Amino acid sequence: MKATAKAHTNIALIKYWGKRDEDLILPTNSSLSLTLDGFYTTTTVDFQEGLTRDVFHLNKEEVFGEAYNRVSHFLELIRNISGKQDLYAKVTSHNEVPTAAGFASSASGFAALAAAGSRAIGLDLSDEELSKLTRQGSGSACRSIYGGFVEWKMGENPDGSDSYAVQIAPSAHWDVRIAAVNLSSNMKKISSRAGMKRTVETSPFYDGWLESLPKDLAQIKEGIRDKDFEKIGEIAEANCLKMHATTLGANPPFTYWHDTTMSVMYVVQELRAKGIPAYFTIDAGPNVKVLYLPEDEAVIEKTLREIPNVTNVTLSKPGPGISYLGVE
Amino acid sequence: MKATAKAHTNIALIKYWGKRDEDLILPTNSSLSLTLDGFYTTTTVDFQEGLTRDVFHLNKEEVFGEAYNRVSHFLELIRNISGKQDLYAKVTSHNEVPTAAGFASSASGFAALAAAGSRAIGLDLSDEELSKLTRQGSGSACRSIYGGFVEWKMGENPDGSDSYAVQIAPSAHWDVRIAAVNLSSNMKKISSRAGMKRTVETSPFYDGWLESLPKDLAQIKEGIRDKDFEKIGEIAEANCLKMHATTLGANPPFTYWHDTTMSVMYVVQELRAKGIPAYFTIDAGPNVKVLYLPEDEAVIEKTLREIPNVTNVTLSKPGPGISYLGVE
Repeated sequence: MKATAKAHTNIALIKYWGKRDEDLILPTNSSLSLTLDGFYTTTTVDFQEGLTRDVFHLNKEEVFGEAYNRVSHFLELIRNISGKQDLYAKVTSHNEVPTAAGFASSASGFAALAAAGSRAIGLDLSDEELSKLTRQGSGSACRSIYGGFVEWKMGENPDGSDSYAVQIAPSAHWDVRIAAVNLSSNMKKISSRAGMKRTVETSPFYDGWLESLPKDLAQIKEGIRDKDFEKIGEIAEANCLKMHATTLGANPPFTYWHDTTMSVMYVVQELRAKGIPAYFTIDAGPNVKVLYLPEDEAVIEKTLREIPNVTNVTLSKPGPGISYLGVE
Repeated sequence: MKATAKAHTNIALIKYWGKRDEDLILPTNSSLSLTLDGFYTTTTVDFQEGLTRDVFHLNKEEVFGEAYNRVSHFLELIRNISGKQDLYAKVTSHNEVPTAAGFASSASGFAALAAAGSRAIGLDLSDEELSKLTRQGSGSACRSIYGGFVEWKMGENPDGSDSYAVQIAPSAHWDVRIAAVNLSSNMKKISSRAGMKRTVETSPFYDGWLESLPKDLAQIKEGIRDKDFEKIGEIAEANCLKMHATTLGANPPFTYWHDTTMSVMYVVQELRAKGIPAYFTIDAGPNVKVLYLPEDEAVIEKTLREIPNVTNVTLSKPGPGISYLGVE
């Protein structure tokens, strides 16, 4: 009744930005991501007789409060699928997603939890089933089931049965890299969850965002197939700018950008002006991710590190999907 | 055949952002501005027998090229209205719109040119007629005919006969002030004209922008009537953010913001958090205008001047409309 799984984080090139169902975590649009090698979570789930509640340790410390509740709620889904409602689990997670790299750990965290939890309780889920289960813990986590380039198909069914991720190309297909650029910041942050909710409900730009997505998705898949870096870079950068534009129309308006966020954006544009292909994308926070090719790694890293108020630059290759480190 | 007129610049609180007719300069939305006391243009137009072409002097230097062409094209409109097609003019303009204050001089410039030119050639236009004429030189200039708070009604007629400005409240109604915050910048700039054209033609957010405007306009007029500073500030700031959001969706995307633009935006929000009412608005460039009340002038000026990379802060009260300094 014990299993250990490892899952990597992913960075969206076409953003997930809005839910049509808050409980089932069903999105209003399909999204597309690259799974990263550098950042992962390893999680052991041990269903034990005699436990009277779930227990959750993260990086060697016991977790309580909202983070605990999300994990326990997710284990409840696994118990319901397996029919073993009376079994509680001890969950032990280690994040190799350094806070300084500016990645949320929910993608790798819930993917590892879903994989280890389902195996530990005796389920043998297909990748599609595992992706659907993972989605209900954290939307973007459903893409971390696979390595390389991954699409989360939004689906149409109200029960979420057709909303899951599929692999577009494995990590070996194309070595596109990501530099995670972290900024010093003491700004208070609106969460991704709250930000997308407010945007969906109040922004006059939300319909325009949705309408523009099918073309972005179709074109970026062509670019991945053809290994056309300029194409995927331009689409990813424009898609990110559109996502962030929607927040400026929310009521009240907000932005995840800081002054240094804009500095990094301008530096990336200057790199392109010098003939070095590099493109940025930004999630629901001030940090910037920069797409580049392996041959430009040295100049990319040096240039990004020189930007004032950039505190950290972490480089990553494309990474693999879920792996199982032990099932007992 | 000679007249001198003075016109003040204005700052839009509800932005003019898009044309439905490029030649007649007819907008896709109504806009609303505050005329400013601090920045103005004084222009003398002298229609002289014997001239074989128009001559334009700005700040004691003769002007050629595109700026000359715009002025001469505008004088042609005046000649056509008056029926005196064979008269050329000497135009002498002085801008009291310091470049360092970051205002475009086209609003005060074309308003003064329209007023002086029409009087010099013997026309006695109503304010409405003068506003319509001015609009054809530079759209936002049609608002500078009036002092205080001014609405440019977009109109519906294809010939522009119902697209002109009206005064909402004179400058004496309410002493709302503007700090013009200028930034050091060596970025290349996309012009207002080119930026709005690209946005109208390519941004998926343009419809959302247009749909949101009637409510903004109705509410800001209530705020002006009631002298509700928080209300007009929130609407102006949100309206500016929406205008700039539309550019992020253009193809290719662009922004007028620089890193210091965002620094100023955050400082203004911090002022509010400290209980000092202040709101920002931004036109088609990196500089920021800050709305404030007279009693907060000292702290506003000091705080804005302390922001790194801010090169200049210029303060202004509400200003008057067109005045005539001499008609011969």
